[in-house]
Amino acid sequence: MLNTKTKNEKYDRNGLENVMKRRFFVVPSFLIYNGVAGLYDFGPTGCALKNNIESFWREHFILEENLLEISGTCITPEIVLKTSGHVDKFTDYAVKDVKTGQCFRADKLIKEWIEKERKKKKLTEEKLKELDELFIKIDNFEEKEIDEVISKNKICSPDTGNELSKSYKFNLMFETQIGPTGGCRGFLRPETAQGHFVNFKHLLDFNNNRIPFGSASIGLGFRNEIAPRSGLLRVREFTMAEIEYFVDPQKKEHKKFSQLKDLKLPLWSAKNQLGGKSIECDITLGEAVEKKIIDNETLGYFLGKTYLFLREIGIRKEGIRFRQHTPKEMAHYASDCWDAEIETSYGWIEVAGHADRTCFDLSHHTEISGTELVASRPLKETKVIKGIKIIPNKAIIFKKFSDKEKCKKLLDKLNSLSDDEKEALMKIYENNGKIEIEDNGEKIILEKDKNEIKMERFEQNVHEEKYFPNVIEPSFGIGRIVYCVMEHCFKVREKDSRRTYFDFPPIIAPYKASILPLIENDKFLAYVEPIRKVLVQNGITYRIDQVDSIGRRYARTDEIGIPFGITIDDITLKDNTITLREIDTMKQIRVPIDEVGTVIKNCCNRIEKWEDIIKKYPSFEEQKKDK
Amino acid sequence: MLNTKTKNEKYDRNGLENVMKRRFFVVPSFLIYNGVAGLYDFGPTGCALKNNIESFWREHFILEENLLEISGTCITPEIVLKTSGHVDKFTDYAVKDVKTGQCFRADKLIKEWIEKERKKKKLTEEKLKELDELFIKIDNFEEKEIDEVISKNKICSPDTGNELSKSYKFNLMFETQIGPTGGCRGFLRPETAQGHFVNFKHLLDFNNNRIPFGSASIGLGFRNEIAPRSGLLRVREFTMAEIEYFVDPQKKEHKKFSQLKDLKLPLWSAKNQLGGKSIECDITLGEAVEKKIIDNETLGYFLGKTYLFLREIGIRKEGIRFRQHTPKEMAHYASDCWDAEIETSYGWIEVAGHADRTCFDLSHHTEISGTELVASRPLKETKVIKGIKIIPNKAIIFKKFSDKEKCKKLLDKLNSLSDDEKEALMKIYENNGKIEIEDNGEKIILEKDKNEIKMERFEQNVHEEKYFPNVIEPSFGIGRIVYCVMEHCFKVREKDSRRTYFDFPPIIAPYKASILPLIENDKFLAYVEPIRKVLVQNGITYRIDQVDSIGRRYARTDEIGIPFGITIDDITLKDNTITLREIDTMKQIRVPIDEVGTVIKNCCNRIEKWEDIIKKYPSFEEQKKDK
Repeated sequence: MLNTKTKNEKYDRNGLENVMKRRFFVVPSFLIYNGVAGLYDFGPTGCALKNNIESFWREHFILEENLLEISGTCITPEIVLKTSGHVDKFTDYAVKDVKTGQCFRADKLIKEWIEKERKKKKLTEEKLKELDELFIKIDNFEEKEIDEVISKNKICSPDTGNELSKSYKFNLMFETQIGPTGGCRGFLRPETAQGHFVNFKHLLDFNNNRIPFGSASIGLGFRNEIAPRSGLLRVREFTMAEIEYFVDPQKKEHKKFSQLKDLKLPLWSAKNQLGGKSIECDITLGEAVEKKIIDNETLGYFLGKTYLFLREIGIRKEGIRFRQHTPKEMAHYASDCWDAEIETSYGWIEVAGHADRTCFDLSHHTEISGTELVASRPLKETKVIKGIKIIPNKAIIFKKFSDKEKCKKLLDKLNSLSDDEKEALMKIYENNGKIEIEDNGEKIILEKDKNEIKMERFEQNVHEEKYFPNVIEPSFGIGRIVYCVMEHCFKVREKDSRRTYFDFPPIIAPYKASILPLIENDKFLAYVEPIRKVLVQNGITYRIDQVDSIGRRYARTDEIGIPFGITIDDITLKDNTITLREIDTMKQIRVPIDEVGTVIKNCCNRIEKWEDIIKKYPSFEEQKKDK
Repeated sequence: MLNTKTKNEKYDRNGLENVMKRRFFVVPSFLIYNGVAGLYDFGPTGCALKNNIESFWREHFILEENLLEISGTCITPEIVLKTSGHVDKFTDYAVKDVKTGQCFRADKLIKEWIEKERKKKKLTEEKLKELDELFIKIDNFEEKEIDEVISKNKICSPDTGNELSKSYKFNLMFETQIGPTGGCRGFLRPETAQGHFVNFKHLLDFNNNRIPFGSASIGLGFRNEIAPRSGLLRVREFTMAEIEYFVDPQKKEHKKFSQLKDLKLPLWSAKNQLGGKSIECDITLGEAVEKKIIDNETLGYFLGKTYLFLREIGIRKEGIRFRQHTPKEMAHYASDCWDAEIETSYGWIEVAGHADRTCFDLSHHTEISGTELVASRPLKETKVIKGIKIIPNKAIIFKKFSDKEKCKKLLDKLNSLSDDEKEALMKIYENNGKIEIEDNGEKIILEKDKNEIKMERFEQNVHEEKYFPNVIEPSFGIGRIVYCVMEHCFKVREKDSRRTYFDFPPIIAPYKASILPLIENDKFLAYVEPIRKVLVQNGITYRIDQVDSIGRRYARTDEIGIPFGITIDDITLKDNTITLREIDTMKQIRVPIDEVGTVIKNCCNRIEKWEDIIKKYPSFEEQKKDK
């Protein structure tokens, strides 16, 4: 059942979209009210497919890599996203149709205009070159440059031909108010990552203060797109699965790297992209890290894990590549980034990013919150730190000076002294036996003999130093992956082009089995409940279908990619066996009802292969002959 | 490992909250920025516990009941929630401290004031009675009555003593804008239910147009509480698990009801509550439905399923009750509702509602959207419908009368005629061979002979009739359930009150196993990876802990409720067995490494019991003696 679709074969987007809608994989949300762009609902088939991909992700990453799974809230107060940079930088430029108010993403609008222009006949070489250069530059344009292009070329609203407004920055976060006061601005999170960073101290503590470790989160992210199109690939609400892997910046090795070092990934480095060179397919992860194409082992290890993940859920080999971000396209928090991209009918699509966020987030949150989000490493050599300790006796001081508030302020000043200031103060203390503190015209005198103040020199041996861990972040868009899996697994029967099916790997198939009584008759129906029970006991999801002919029902269950069909027929009445049919080969074998749960479960959990199972049981034809 | 905590034993909220925070079950979100009231993050232990409860819910309800799981969006356009009644009715009354701006929920504020008043000495009987009556009436008060109570009793802001503002309605939905135009108001959904209703046609079609069936959804809900307290029990963002079970209102029987009819649930009917009577514990579901205490089998069946669910995840028997809503507290869409309530340190808490929403939602959405959200049932006797068909020939008419807009309007009028009006028109048609249509001073004449119009009498046999299905809705608050499970499973070792543990049923325990090398030494550490692999292969979650003494590590793993401890010790080096320790009994047996995965898996999946497993393997003491 390996996916063997070749690269030349076109993806049948229309056929797929038809099935997706008709068999309730995914539909636009709120369709009875004409829908809302960029919002989609998953029906039973799509939801099960998505759940199964999430479960397998959890197994493949969280369980196997022993990550700490956490779950944060979508609603996020402004300060967190201000600190992370999203309030200022998570923006796109928009322009409006001045008459209808319809909004467009400025860069997309101009790119589409360029594509139209390019198709015009009789363009000079010079003009062509100019358009091509513009196309590339657009991504880095700001308001002024965008407005110039639009006005110079008289670009207008594509649907109406109306004039366009000046461009303006639009923040892509959904904004809301938390609570009734109107004084607590919040946003729906654009990524789950911030929930990891603000909890870093808890996580480190839970990991017995040891680095490296990773946390993971599967949850919703939101992006208030200006004008979303491209179906499931650009949506306003989506499920993300993110890993934040915290490492010591001095030790980016990964202890399991050797397990993946011989894996060959299709790598497209920034250097090759900019130099017009293509993807390197014949290089191992080990070599790529050694040659610094990939910066370090930890990043390399997760690229390998992602590749294996995508292959296991049915993405074909030739349809995967890893593309490094060029310096200009990097997110504001990243120093390096590799996207896992999948080929689809829309072109190559990013489904997972692997960013090295350095210590951007932990250091910024430390600065703004005042909570130190750091780890410690032992020093090779013990350091000696010298200093002066100032110990005021507050009990005595507060008795003497009645105005406590003033006192506190003055004493606080002692804490903020620099080393040099302390040294100067120490001399006065040693010479006079008393010191004077002054602030804003107020002052107090504290005397050694009255036990009001003590100053001591100290020496301290320091065995460890604090540092900000770096963060390697593999981040997956689950909705996009679901869509890509559907495109890659969508197939047509050779003998009948109207009959389509999905050859999903059984582990992610929405339903694992169908229960099909040959006809809707009590003698067959009596077997439904016992078979259902066997499946439920084995945790196997199923669909019961008893309407129409068996052929039409096979077609129907094929359409939603059910790998195993269980048919109850006349032979069942005689010997308690059923016909078990596999979707891709369409081969049918006879299996006793008692055993069907185990057979399907083992196949779904990849303990046994269908090729081996069919050797163990008589084929449908054989058994029929016997009876 | 059955939970046997008796009713008299106090719940140790402080002890639990300490462990919850320290061992990262749940912490307030964004704590480094002082947190946001009503938002909580789940750490690795809490997240795993929550995931496991969700998975078990999915198995217990979706898989066993063959429900259609769907997943809708949180962001919801205004029209959907206007139609559902939430824009107008999902509100609480708030009052503000006029100086600080702090907000309070008016009903809670007054109730707290009453409780304080009641504790005052020398209250007259009359005054007491007055306060008690007020306490009950509050829930139904509107602005004017609330303001009167506050001003009459000079109730002021509890923290500052400042005056309070007039009360005002505050809508509890988080509001946002979808897209950049500013013209598309949206809300975060307060329930997942609407996602089911707007998709009803897709669902019915997917179920081959057969009723009854149920859809289910596990997802986020939001409620912008005015001033949330009570920790995890009143939060602003929460996971819900909801079932919408669609039934023919004439057939509310459930085909599996007989399987649960002998179950006895603790039922507290509205009648008993209002009559001052207590809970009935000795009545079977069958009797309760027969006596109409519970309205119908489907509602009764789900009450039973909920009871079994709560028991299986560790809620003790005496801590569950089902309380029927009194007519006044019912939600705006419900005709009957039974809450599953759990006893906690906060008192009895609703964790699941079971509402009969009748056809409220489907009929309202049909009315507003114009899409018929109905099902059909066969008629017992075929009905004959007689009528008059009016067929204008638009092609001819539009040629004759140039103003198409006017024409259309006039023709539209034909569609809106009543039967009597059609009958009258038919007579004119039959007599004159032409008809006249008039609307707002405009008119046209349509002639039979010119083929502009045709009118025919028809008779039609109708075999089925349309109807709005009724909806039975079991709706679970997963976060609340997680908290209740923690309170019910939190225990203290008899011999050492500082040592606490959770006796979670293994199926929901956050981690199933700990791997504990006796000391952090290479000879023991070498066994970690092979054991880890065995566990991963069996899908068993684990924690590796190698820091500190084995006693302290047992204490630590007990604190997070890991049911099975695997210790690698000197005997392991000799015979490849490990010590397996169970958390509640603290009994230890020796199990070969090869078998430990199966043993734990079977225990977690309830295939085998610990009591039976310990008979199969030598105890730790026995084996130690042998070696």
